[in-house]
Amino acid sequence: MSSSPSKVLIAGEWRASKASDFIQAENPATGEPLPQKYPVSTRDEVVEAVHAGAEAAETLRDVDPKKMAQFLEACAAGIEQRATELVDIANAETGLPKSPRLKDVELPRTTDQLRQAARVARDGSWERPVRDDARKIYSIHAPLGGPVVVMGPNNFPFAYNSAAGGDFAAAIVARNPVIAKANPGHPGTTQILAEIALEAARACGLPLSTVQLIYHTPPDAGFALVSHSLVGATAFTGSREAGLKLKAAADAAGKPIFLEMSSINPVVILEGALLERCDTIADEFFGSCTAAAGQMCTNPGLILLQEGESGRRFLEASKKKFAAAPAGVLLGRGVRERLTQSVQRLRQSGAQLVCGGEPLPGPSVRYENTLLSVSGASFLTHSQELQTEAFGPASLLVTCASVGEIAAVIKSISGQLTGSIYSRTDGADDAAYGAIEPLLRTRVGRLLNDKMPTGVAVSPAMNHGGPYPATGHPGYTAVGLPAAVQRFTALHCYDNIPPRRLPTALKASK
Amino acid sequence: MSSSPSKVLIAGEWRASKASDFIQAENPATGEPLPQKYPVSTRDEVVEAVHAGAEAAETLRDVDPKKMAQFLEACAAGIEQRATELVDIANAETGLPKSPRLKDVELPRTTDQLRQAARVARDGSWERPVRDDARKIYSIHAPLGGPVVVMGPNNFPFAYNSAAGGDFAAAIVARNPVIAKANPGHPGTTQILAEIALEAARACGLPLSTVQLIYHTPPDAGFALVSHSLVGATAFTGSREAGLKLKAAADAAGKPIFLEMSSINPVVILEGALLERCDTIADEFFGSCTAAAGQMCTNPGLILLQEGESGRRFLEASKKKFAAAPAGVLLGRGVRERLTQSVQRLRQSGAQLVCGGEPLPGPSVRYENTLLSVSGASFLTHSQELQTEAFGPASLLVTCASVGEIAAVIKSISGQLTGSIYSRTDGADDAAYGAIEPLLRTRVGRLLNDKMPTGVAVSPAMNHGGPYPATGHPGYTAVGLPAAVQRFTALHCYDNIPPRRLPTALKASK
Repeated sequence: MSSSPSKVLIAGEWRASKASDFIQAENPATGEPLPQKYPVSTRDEVVEAVHAGAEAAETLRDVDPKKMAQFLEACAAGIEQRATELVDIANAETGLPKSPRLKDVELPRTTDQLRQAARVARDGSWERPVRDDARKIYSIHAPLGGPVVVMGPNNFPFAYNSAAGGDFAAAIVARNPVIAKANPGHPGTTQILAEIALEAARACGLPLSTVQLIYHTPPDAGFALVSHSLVGATAFTGSREAGLKLKAAADAAGKPIFLEMSSINPVVILEGALLERCDTIADEFFGSCTAAAGQMCTNPGLILLQEGESGRRFLEASKKKFAAAPAGVLLGRGVRERLTQSVQRLRQSGAQLVCGGEPLPGPSVRYENTLLSVSGASFLTHSQELQTEAFGPASLLVTCASVGEIAAVIKSISGQLTGSIYSRTDGADDAAYGAIEPLLRTRVGRLLNDKMPTGVAVSPAMNHGGPYPATGHPGYTAVGLPAAVQRFTALHCYDNIPPRRLPTALKASK
Repeated sequence: MSSSPSKVLIAGEWRASKASDFIQAENPATGEPLPQKYPVSTRDEVVEAVHAGAEAAETLRDVDPKKMAQFLEACAAGIEQRATELVDIANAETGLPKSPRLKDVELPRTTDQLRQAARVARDGSWERPVRDDARKIYSIHAPLGGPVVVMGPNNFPFAYNSAAGGDFAAAIVARNPVIAKANPGHPGTTQILAEIALEAARACGLPLSTVQLIYHTPPDAGFALVSHSLVGATAFTGSREAGLKLKAAADAAGKPIFLEMSSINPVVILEGALLERCDTIADEFFGSCTAAAGQMCTNPGLILLQEGESGRRFLEASKKKFAAAPAGVLLGRGVRERLTQSVQRLRQSGAQLVCGGEPLPGPSVRYENTLLSVSGASFLTHSQELQTEAFGPASLLVTCASVGEIAAVIKSISGQLTGSIYSRTDGADDAAYGAIEPLLRTRVGRLLNDKMPTGVAVSPAMNHGGPYPATGHPGYTAVGLPAAVQRFTALHCYDNIPPRRLPTALKASK
C-alpha cells in the first residue's frame, strides 16, 4: 500500500485532503493496525463538499429517472467487478469472514438492493403523484434540493455502506446527491465503493458530485455538516451516543435527520412454547445472538421468560451452546471496549453472569459468548440501566414471575427495532399472547412470531425502524423500497400550473 | 355568562381545573374583554390528560375504523346543529365577520373536512398496507400508540381548531386520541367544539378520552406536554417563536412534532405579466393580502418585481387600493402589537413605507392596510431582517434591477409554504420563468402560477407545508387527505405472524 494518505472525493475529483489528522483502521483478526492513512476532514473541507453537492442537486432534480436507475445498476456491476478486492479489504478491516458472510451473503445483498432501487427509480413509485384535475392542483414527492449526508455503521461494510448501501440507494432513487462519510472502521472498503460510484456517475452522464466521500471528521465538522443550510437531510446508523449528538445539531437547524441508533430487540418466550420445543428455540436463540459475533442491530439482547422448570431448562440449554461455541472476532477494539463496559453496567445493575463475561486474550479482538440473567422484579427496579445495549455476542435473560410481570417489563421498555413472541403451536399460549402483544406492538417497528429478529429481509414490506430511541421517528424505515425513499423527499404541490410546466411524472400520469 | 371559570375536559369529564391562573378572550371589534374565564392548566393537570389519552390510545388501536368515521361525521353534524352559537362566539372572540366568513365559508369547510376525513377513515387509504406473501412479511401504517397533542392557531377558529380542524381530523382518522389545547384567542369556541366531540364520542361508543381539552398552559407545562413519553406526537400551528420552543422540547425527547410556523409567501410578478394585465394583478394582490385582514398563513407578504415603468404602475395601483380600503378588524391586541413591531423592524432594515404603517385609534383593534418597498440590492444586504413576517394586512414590494436579481433574492429566502410566479400569457416571460422556477420550487411547498397564494383548497393534492422554517419537515402536509394523516402514524411490520393474529386490514387486503 501507498504511504501517502488516501484522497477525499470532493466535487468530482480525488483530492489530497487539507487534513492534519489521520485515522488508520486495524485488522481485528490480527490486532494489527492497517498501514493506510485516511484524512480527518476539517469543517472547511466538509463545507466544500456541501456546496458541490448543492450544485449537483440542482442538476439531478431534472435528470431523467432512467439515468438514476442506470447509475444504480452501474454501481452494482462495478461492485461485482471488484468483488474480490472488496471482500479482501472488508475482511481485513472488519474481521467478518470472507465466505459465506462477505462474498456470498452481504455483497450479493448489496447489489440486489442497488438493483431493487434501480427498479424503483424507473417505476417512480416513490413519487406518489396525486392529481386534482377539477381544481388544477397536483402534488408529487420530489428531491430534497440538497445533498443527503449518509453516515454508515461499522457492522455492514457493504450493505449499509455510505457509498453503496441502503441509505445511499434510497437517497439516489429520489435524485439526491450523496455525501458519504465513511465509517472509520472500514475506510478502505468505502473508498473503493466511492471509486465505483464515481465511475458509474461518469459513465451515466450524471454530475460528478453525485457521490462525494470523506472518511472522518472532528465532532464540530460533523455537526456543521448535518446542520448546514444547503444539506437536504442526513441518514445515520450507529451508536445512540453519536446519534443523539448529531440529532441535536440537525434538529436545532431544522434539518431532517433519520437515525438508527440502538435496539435490544426483546424476545418473549411463552411457557407453552418452551414446553413444546425448548431445544429448538435455544438453538435459534444461540444462532441469532452469535451471528456475526452478535454485532447486528437486531441482535436478541433481551429474552423474557416465565420462571419455573421450563425456563431453567432453556437457560441451561442456552448456556451450554454459548459456552461451547468459539467466540467470533469483533469488528474492533472499540466494539470490545464498549461491550466490556455494557456487561459491567448490566452486572452493576443486578444482572448475574450465566457464562462468559470477559474479553479474550490473544492478538485477535474477541470477547466470550455471554449470557446474563436477572429476575423480572429486579429488572423493574433498574429498568433503564438493564436496557443497556451490549453490542456483541451477549444477551440478558429476564425470568418473570408471571405473564403479568412480563407485561410490566415490556411496559418499561423504550422503543425498539423489533420484538418477538414465541408461543405454543396449538394455541395454548393465546391468552398470554393477547395480553402481551398490544404492549409490544406499539414499542417496536417489526413484530415477529416464533422467529428470531436477525435477518432483515430486503422486502417492500420490511420495516427496519421503530419508535425512539431505536430511531428518530416511528413512521420511517431504512430498509424496504419504495418506503425507505420517502425519508429523502420533499412534497411539492403545483397549483394552477400550466401542463407544459409540470414535471414529467405529473404530465404522464394523466 | 356564568361567573365561574370554564371547566377543562379531562378523562371524559368536564372538571373544575386546579388552575390558579385564568385567561379571558377579548372582542377585538369592541376592544372589550369577554366575561368568561378559562383556566391555565398546570403541569400536573396536563399530565393527567396525557395518562387518560394513553389509555384511550390502547382502546382506539383496535376500534373498528367505521366507528372513527361515524365519530367524525357526528362531529360535523353537531357543529351544524350548534352553528349559530358557534358563529356568534367565534365572531365575538376573533372579530371575523359572521357572514360570509364564519357561517358560509369556514364552518362548511370544517364540516366538509370532517366528512372527507370520515371517508378516509372508512377507505383506509392512509394505512398503505404492503404484503410480501412469499416471505410472510406485511407492513401497515398504524396509530402512534399515544395521544396526539393539537395546538391550533388564532386565525381559523373552526377549520384549524384543536378540537375540530384539520389536524384533529387527521389524528382521529389514524385512531389516535387528541389532547386539544385551545388557542387562547378563542377558548369559548373551542369549548363548544370539544363539547360536540365528547357527545359524538359517547354516541359512537368511543372512549370518552378520545378528545380532551385544556385552554392554556404556562410554558413549562406546554413543554412537558409535547415531550411526555406517553404522547404520540404534536401538531402545532402558530408563531415561529412559540413553535421553535416547543420543537426544541419535543426534539430533545425524541417526540415527533409537526409545526406550521410562518411564511411570507413570495410572489414574483414578471414584467410581461405586468405589461399585459397590471390592474388585474394589483386587484388580485390587494384581495389576497387584505382578506381576513391579512391574517392568513399564506398571505402574500413579499412581492418581487422588476424595476421600471410597469413596476411603478403596479406599485401605484396597489397603493391606491390599499389606501382606499377600510382596515379590517384584527384578531386581537397581540396580533396588532406584533404587526407594529414587524413593520418597525422592516423599516429599520431599509424598507420604505408606501402607505399605511400605523395602528388605528378607536375601540376596535385595527391597523392600516400597509405597503412597504425596498430595492433588490437593499433586500440582499438585510435579507434575514426583511423576511420578518408581518402577520396582517401588510406586504413588502421588492423592486429588482433584473431577473438575475430576482433570482438572487429568492436564493436568499428561507423555506416557505407557497411561492407564486405571474407571467405573460403568450409565453414572452418563459426564459425568466425558467431561471426563477427551479430556485423557488425547492424553497416552497406549493408553487402557483398566475394566482395568489391565499385559499388553501381542501384537496387530496394540496400541500399545506414546506421546508423549514415554514414547517419542521418538507415531506408533510397539514391539509389534504390522506397525506395529512401520515404525520400521526407509526409503521408496523409483521414478520412471520399467523394470519389469525394480523390486523384486519392486512387480512382483508389479500
